Amino acid sequence: MESFSFYNPTRVLFGKGQIGKIGKELKKADIKSCLMIAGGGSIRKNGVYDQVCESLKANKIEWIESWGVQPNPTVEKVREMIALAKESSVDAILAVGGGSVIDSGKATAAGIFLNDIWNAYVDKEKIIRALPIFTILTISGTGSEMNGNSVLTLSSEKKKWSISSKLLYPKVSIIDPSIQATLSFQQTVNGAIDAISHILEYIFMNETAVVTRNIDAGLIKTIVKMTDRLQQDANDYTARANLAWSATLALNGISGVGLQGGDWACHSIEHALSAIDPKIAHGEGLGVIFPAWIEYVSEREPNRFSWWVKEVSEEDSVARALRKCRETLKRWGSATNLRELGIRESQLPEIRDLLLTYGPIGEIVRFRAEDIEALLMLAY
Amino acid sequence: MESFSFYNPTRVLFGKGQIGKIGKELKKADIKSCLMIAGGGSIRKNGVYDQVCESLKANKIEWIESWGVQPNPTVEKVREMIALAKESSVDAILAVGGGSVIDSGKATAAGIFLNDIWNAYVDKEKIIRALPIFTILTISGTGSEMNGNSVLTLSSEKKKWSISSKLLYPKVSIIDPSIQATLSFQQTVNGAIDAISHILEYIFMNETAVVTRNIDAGLIKTIVKMTDRLQQDANDYTARANLAWSATLALNGISGVGLQGGDWACHSIEHALSAIDPKIAHGEGLGVIFPAWIEYVSEREPNRFSWWVKEVSEEDSVARALRKCRETLKRWGSATNLRELGIRESQLPEIRDLLLTYGPIGEIVRFRAEDIEALLMLAY
Repeated sequence: MESFSFYNPTRVLFGKGQIGKIGKELKKADIKSCLMIAGGGSIRKNGVYDQVCESLKANKIEWIESWGVQPNPTVEKVREMIALAKESSVDAILAVGGGSVIDSGKATAAGIFLNDIWNAYVDKEKIIRALPIFTILTISGTGSEMNGNSVLTLSSEKKKWSISSKLLYPKVSIIDPSIQATLSFQQTVNGAIDAISHILEYIFMNETAVVTRNIDAGLIKTIVKMTDRLQQDANDYTARANLAWSATLALNGISGVGLQGGDWACHSIEHALSAIDPKIAHGEGLGVIFPAWIEYVSEREPNRFSWWVKEVSEEDSVARALRKCRETLKRWGSATNLRELGIRESQLPEIRDLLLTYGPIGEIVRFRAEDIEALLMLAY
Repeated sequence: MESFSFYNPTRVLFGKGQIGKIGKELKKADIKSCLMIAGGGSIRKNGVYDQVCESLKANKIEWIESWGVQPNPTVEKVREMIALAKESSVDAILAVGGGSVIDSGKATAAGIFLNDIWNAYVDKEKIIRALPIFTILTISGTGSEMNGNSVLTLSSEKKKWSISSKLLYPKVSIIDPSIQATLSFQQTVNGAIDAISHILEYIFMNETAVVTRNIDAGLIKTIVKMTDRLQQDANDYTARANLAWSATLALNGISGVGLQGGDWACHSIEHALSAIDPKIAHGEGLGVIFPAWIEYVSEREPNRFSWWVKEVSEEDSVARALRKCRETLKRWGSATNLRELGIRESQLPEIRDLLLTYGPIGEIVRFRAEDIEALLMLAY
């Protein structure tokens, strides 16, 4: 088991009825005003917006609002929000939404102290300060509610890049799984696949982090089982709650302890896909890429996958485990190849070339141009 | 899954060679002087003391030392340390040892701001402030390195009671599993049983925290497997490291999420045992009490134990699962009944009467005098 440091100071309030606590939490942290960041408006329909406003008012917190964060959020949109935050001199960021909203909130929190936030994503400026970040999660998947990561896309250059900073851990995150009952099953599935993929990025790294891998097996099995239950009944609260907490744990540090920081090739490849076509949901893209990656890498290093085959998939060969994966994706109505994602064969060279601008891809196998081509063909 | 809040701000530095970082960590936290708290002297033999002193000197941290914390640490000893900390106006507490040393360190950190520290354990004073606490763990088991708990014994009244406060989370805990290679196997086993018992206090509470119970199953299986490996080879670093991190996770909040705070009857009962006979190691005492508790409670509520029987013990009946437990304890050379702990039948009424002074015992079954008697007879 390799050495590690573990630190995660986010306070999570989890359960039905917790959203109403947000005003009090801001007040306790001595926040007088905040910028509320939100997406396309679903929080107006599911009652979350009203709960938040009521709680802010009751605790005399002033706020301004910035709406319209899209899936695969852009730095262009974040620059608008930074300008608004600067102009109105807010004390904090309150992100109310899913991973895209929270990632944009983090970028805004850090961006007001930088010349340009995108510089941080391309290692030209270092994050030195950030406004305190508070989140109310409306869809589980990215784990952004309990980590210091943020992923943004620079649309003009089709670059989807990430940052990670201790300064970007939310102070408080509220997770009320009951509000996720209004999500479509496809949104639920995209979150579930994203969460599973975070764990898969870690577990093939080494065999010595026995306890972490045992925890990870438990997380993956829980996520699959709960997603199956939600396919039967979107209002199954126990399933929502277990899926939500599993997704948080999948990328809050616990799932990667002793696993050398993970591989992350599949995330890079998926980022290229959704940079080329922003309509591709991150989770659905990962559902296509990960099985292809396992297929490709296991031909080179079969032993690396035997623990996963046996303990996670409960199968006896990589081929059978992969078949089970793809059957699960089909059962959930999720894509199992690039064609189903709407990618044309003629786009594959563009994806390859974009990926080659991303720097080193993968740890277990370092993907060169020919590896990328082979993997994309497997995924096609 | 019941609602919860999760917050654990302790920074853990884990692995070989981390102890030398302690001076730098104190300096980063602006600590100029600390009180180093230690046990009977094993840290002089295994090199830990020298590493700590060197690191403190290199970072110009001044310190005074207080030695002699015993297993089942006493409030009487803590009062001495509080007097020393007050008199020398240290900025922080540095606990170098196992759970007893860390628990004494926490009590000292809070105690200098109270009229008398024992008042906090009997709910007569509230912990309102504490010096920052830093720890270097030398034996894994209690999990005190990453939680806000402390257990002390008031020898004069044979009371072994606990406190829990957000103010008592260590700022930084260093866990170097390699130094635990010098422990006797019996010490290792006591720590392992303690860690397993922490998880067992939670998992029977409800069925809805599916993800937490899956994680807990992974933790228990890892602990058993790694302890078996250490019985074969005390220098097996992978086993030490996995056991150490499992024990930390067993009581840092993760293992109890959504499980209503746990039952804790067995811990209360063991506390009475070791209050009556301080020679009884906490872990070994728990190894006797827990199987008896399962035997007693499962006669009343058999269904509550079916998940544990199947998923954790991989057996098909409570009786077979308990047999497996006791066989494991025997294999490890640990006691399986009160007689082997040196308790005489004539002491059972004294244990019962002491327990009845402890307030309510247990959540799943609230133990009255006759339940305690029956359980002690099962354990005898």
